[in-house]
Amino acid sequence: MVQNLNKNIQEGDNPDLTSERLTSTFNTNDMAAQIWGSEKRARRRREISAKIAQMPELHDSKPLPFMTREEKIMESARKLTILTEKMGQIIDPTDPAELYHLNNEVLGLEGNPMALHGVMFIPALSAQASDEQQAKWLPRALRREIIGTYAQTELGHGTNLQNLETTATYDLATQEFVLHTPQITALKWWPGNLGKSSNYAVVVAHMIIKAKNYGPHPFMVQLRDEKTHEPLPGITIGDIGPKMAYNIVDNGFLGFNKYRIPRTNLLMRHTKVEADGTYIKPPHAKINYSAMVHVRAYMLTGQAIMLASALNIATRYSSVRRQGQIDKSQPEVKVLEYQTQQHRLFPSIARAYAFQFAGAETVKLYEHVLKEMKSGNVSLMADLHALTSGLKSVVTYQTGEGIEQARMACGGHGYSMASYISEIYGVAIGGCTYEGENMVMLLQLARYLVKSAALVKSGQSSKLGPLVAYLGVKSEPTSLIDRIPNSGFTEYVKTFQHVSKRQTLKAADMFFGLMEKGEKREIAWNKCSVELNRASRLHTRLFIVEAFVRRVNEIADIRIKEALTDLLHLHVNYELLDIASYALEDGFLSASQLDYIRDQVYLYLGKIRPNAVSLLDSWEFSDIELRSVLGRRDGNVYENLFKWAKSSPLNKTDVLSSVTQYLKPMMEKARL
Amino acid sequence: MVQNLNKNIQEGDNPDLTSERLTSTFNTNDMAAQIWGSEKRARRRREISAKIAQMPELHDSKPLPFMTREEKIMESARKLTILTEKMGQIIDPTDPAELYHLNNEVLGLEGNPMALHGVMFIPALSAQASDEQQAKWLPRALRREIIGTYAQTELGHGTNLQNLETTATYDLATQEFVLHTPQITALKWWPGNLGKSSNYAVVVAHMIIKAKNYGPHPFMVQLRDEKTHEPLPGITIGDIGPKMAYNIVDNGFLGFNKYRIPRTNLLMRHTKVEADGTYIKPPHAKINYSAMVHVRAYMLTGQAIMLASALNIATRYSSVRRQGQIDKSQPEVKVLEYQTQQHRLFPSIARAYAFQFAGAETVKLYEHVLKEMKSGNVSLMADLHALTSGLKSVVTYQTGEGIEQARMACGGHGYSMASYISEIYGVAIGGCTYEGENMVMLLQLARYLVKSAALVKSGQSSKLGPLVAYLGVKSEPTSLIDRIPNSGFTEYVKTFQHVSKRQTLKAADMFFGLMEKGEKREIAWNKCSVELNRASRLHTRLFIVEAFVRRVNEIADIRIKEALTDLLHLHVNYELLDIASYALEDGFLSASQLDYIRDQVYLYLGKIRPNAVSLLDSWEFSDIELRSVLGRRDGNVYENLFKWAKSSPLNKTDVLSSVTQYLKPMMEKARL
Repeated sequence: MVQNLNKNIQEGDNPDLTSERLTSTFNTNDMAAQIWGSEKRARRRREISAKIAQMPELHDSKPLPFMTREEKIMESARKLTILTEKMGQIIDPTDPAELYHLNNEVLGLEGNPMALHGVMFIPALSAQASDEQQAKWLPRALRREIIGTYAQTELGHGTNLQNLETTATYDLATQEFVLHTPQITALKWWPGNLGKSSNYAVVVAHMIIKAKNYGPHPFMVQLRDEKTHEPLPGITIGDIGPKMAYNIVDNGFLGFNKYRIPRTNLLMRHTKVEADGTYIKPPHAKINYSAMVHVRAYMLTGQAIMLASALNIATRYSSVRRQGQIDKSQPEVKVLEYQTQQHRLFPSIARAYAFQFAGAETVKLYEHVLKEMKSGNVSLMADLHALTSGLKSVVTYQTGEGIEQARMACGGHGYSMASYISEIYGVAIGGCTYEGENMVMLLQLARYLVKSAALVKSGQSSKLGPLVAYLGVKSEPTSLIDRIPNSGFTEYVKTFQHVSKRQTLKAADMFFGLMEKGEKREIAWNKCSVELNRASRLHTRLFIVEAFVRRVNEIADIRIKEALTDLLHLHVNYELLDIASYALEDGFLSASQLDYIRDQVYLYLGKIRPNAVSLLDSWEFSDIELRSVLGRRDGNVYENLFKWAKSSPLNKTDVLSSVTQYLKPMMEKARL
Repeated sequence: MVQNLNKNIQEGDNPDLTSERLTSTFNTNDMAAQIWGSEKRARRRREISAKIAQMPELHDSKPLPFMTREEKIMESARKLTILTEKMGQIIDPTDPAELYHLNNEVLGLEGNPMALHGVMFIPALSAQASDEQQAKWLPRALRREIIGTYAQTELGHGTNLQNLETTATYDLATQEFVLHTPQITALKWWPGNLGKSSNYAVVVAHMIIKAKNYGPHPFMVQLRDEKTHEPLPGITIGDIGPKMAYNIVDNGFLGFNKYRIPRTNLLMRHTKVEADGTYIKPPHAKINYSAMVHVRAYMLTGQAIMLASALNIATRYSSVRRQGQIDKSQPEVKVLEYQTQQHRLFPSIARAYAFQFAGAETVKLYEHVLKEMKSGNVSLMADLHALTSGLKSVVTYQTGEGIEQARMACGGHGYSMASYISEIYGVAIGGCTYEGENMVMLLQLARYLVKSAALVKSGQSSKLGPLVAYLGVKSEPTSLIDRIPNSGFTEYVKTFQHVSKRQTLKAADMFFGLMEKGEKREIAWNKCSVELNRASRLHTRLFIVEAFVRRVNEIADIRIKEALTDLLHLHVNYELLDIASYALEDGFLSASQLDYIRDQVYLYLGKIRPNAVSLLDSWEFSDIELRSVLGRRDGNVYENLFKWAKSSPLNKTDVLSSVTQYLKPMMEKARL
């Protein structure tokens, strides 16, 4: 018997989905190893999923969309306490990747009541508390004796940290800091789990000593009584209310009414304040980007996972949904046969892979740069900071776009919460705003690009960082994408480089030109910001293409390499078509090359068709993790949609109380 | 004292918003008359809003985002019964525009338990029931003795009506139709208010008489007992579960187990079936597009309103939100100062106006075509059907895009339900799927465009319909947008025409070429469908531009005309830049013209800046209708955000039960 290359086939599956899997040209377990970074990681994911499948106490007790917000939080807290006990039986808790996967499977993407405890509170203490402070607080946090969060943003200020308004004024007499919220806009606002779940927080406030403001500093603050969990006197605290998504997280507000904490609650790893109010500066006051870079680099994987999840749901469903005929003499076709459907889904499949590979490369780069920093080379972190700012922005935007297209590709049923895609969208699209609003992020990258352009213009191209070296290289007069056989993707990369370089230099020229005309720097900057952001996007998209090319070039396994090469062909052509106007403008691309690119897109849609389901199966999301009736592995969609609907909350009674109380009396009155 | 042109200024308003209103160059009441079609309509809207403001029983008893789905339905039913009593005191109930406005204000955009009764059930009876049947059912429906809906789509089939699976088999012996659901995919699925609220429905089923299938026909079916509202025997019925939005509507499922209805429940205005089973064909069996055209034409206004609502919220909030400095020596600026923010919002303001004007023109066209049809000229309806298919698709897509950009322009607070923008998005984006899935719609227009292209190719351009006459006109070799001073928008329109024509002819050639090579028609069609849809989008965008130009040309009031001319300048340049690759490809636009277009975009962003808030104030959405804390007319956002948050459901208690039951015991155990 032939071994199926796609490892997702089981008896009882919808034959329309099985037939898709039978055409896979590669082993999905091998592809999973590419996606997750190694054969071991992919195997561990499967093992963890299998264990969780055996533990019903960790499954959703009913579909999340059937729960109120309060019920969802309750359900999540229930699972959290079980995980606290049993985590060690399922994963190696010291491995962040395993923890992440466990989280996605059991708690899901809508967040949980301790989401910030692990990813913000403990890291903040680890990075900013002194050894002595760590000894006091960290073990308690790690054992979960206390629950903490990190409170920085305020009602009136998010992006502009220097203008935060919460104050921590040192009282020399009592050796205490007095935390205060001088006006309503100074309320801490948005921190996750601040509203209801946490009893401690690292709070950022302007530190004032002897009437001098030393700027924002972090303080360890107890918020609630450890016994009763009631807010302590002087603390105003609560949940900020329902949101587009992430509703299991109790994002909170926090106000202080002259709330006193000991001097020693200032986190003193870097800065110190002595009992007499003496301020001791940290050794180097330079901004430390590394925490931001770290979060943004890891965000890419999260976004790739959400994009792939939505595509997985839509592509599986498109394989079992039959609607309309192409050949009138034949039965209705799978909607995946329609070119418009392929065009909606397949380029996003390529992006999901591209984001995952670019994310992995960025994380590696980050680890490399951290090492370099320890040996004194600090400059690379600024380069990486610029790159991750752009990546965060482009990836979150394109992910949202791709998820919505996936949802719409499911027709009406995509709009039902049974697809779960709208929830995935709500969570993913939040990434455009949190961790640095996308426009601001693009402009941060633009600052770096403009500095680089200035080097090019002043003949100092040799000083360009490795990520922007192409800005100093002269390009050919025209693109050669269709001229050099067997050139791999080199000519495509060169075309993306040309386009990015041209827009960067053009936007920089615009900016320098305005300043030469006498505009103030920041005003000139604002006037060029749309063009600068365009440069940032092009630079970022170039990086994503390059990262995809580099990864494919590294692959040894022939079947995997072939399948991903097809996907990469689709990617470079689709993306180039999308930004074609930049390349047509100066004649770098010709009309006939554009036609060639279009033909290539259609050619590769067709080539990817037999692998489409398998390319998404390879991410190996379990049904437990996907939480989607439409996206079920077995493809048995319709009977399960019916089952799902029948058990939904409105169907608990045949006659709703809105009818009994209002509509029935209204009809009865009309009949009199 | 100078009379302010913007009529929204009141004492106590946030001065940052007032200062925006003081720069208005036009009277907002006059602009409202443009938007709503006449001075009288605009005035009536204000009067209706004022009356509703005085009737607290018609206001949301608490913010909708704080309610569960069941509570929202209850609240909506409560208001419906009050409206049933008092509607006549507020509006002229025979005026659909007044009814629509009342609906938006009181019930809001999330739907209501009788949404389909008025817009689908009664019209279906009016159009398809015989006079005798109407006499029997219509008065009961109009008096609200019964609540009805229209049940057509099924679990397995939406778009492809011919393949619906519900059957109505005629039983000669009893003179009854036997309705039956042969398998799970044949369940009626999605009809609004079918699940819980309606006790009657017009049900579409394949009519089978003496083993012959006459295709889908509409039947009047009682679903629930009029006294108890319990489902009748043989009926399986319920709500399909929660959705991305529209959750006040109980979209339903419906199954029949050999459910019998009298023969005379077949709606017999057109088709008739006699007691002996004799089938009498309708006089002309041709598809009647008019109902679809009607709905799609009216959808445009609905979409424009939702886009303008979201922009209103975002633009007002951007005027009171201060974040960051442009000039470091100055205080923080309004975020509306940032070019990136203007670029996010202003082109969409132009689109909202363009959609509203294109919508009004389409409705007029529809009324004209209806008249023509009565005098025997049927051909125009096919033209209009093609146009509205494209408009529905382009407008819903761009509306969704614009709403999401508006939400993101509000930063973190946009993500809160306090902005209400995500709810607006959820409702608006549904329009991409319902009333004909967008890809399918674009292909319907493409069919018409390809037919038209065939006329051009065969030298029969004179036979082209008025909406596609430009396909037969030879264009200049290059665009003259920057060459002819004072040419108004003529050269822009010509450029859009050129681009649309070129893509239409190119896609049609691709299609004809494949057929010449021997591909079957439908297979060739599928292979060209992405290119065909591109043609459809360009044709539609041309129409929108033209409708905007036509409207502006008609305006007499100088101030209004000037303000809208600025907006139109932004529109044509922004849209042309967006589709520039099509015009660059064949050299119709040059690189220097593209630079000119870009400069024009930035120029007009600046010109629109002083009118931005007023252009949105002019839609005269009341706070009751907007339901947004961020979008409040008075701009007093922060204190109200705090008030809103404090009253949200999670803050009813200081300690959540998730803490008492799970998190506190977990922490206590860890402390042992």
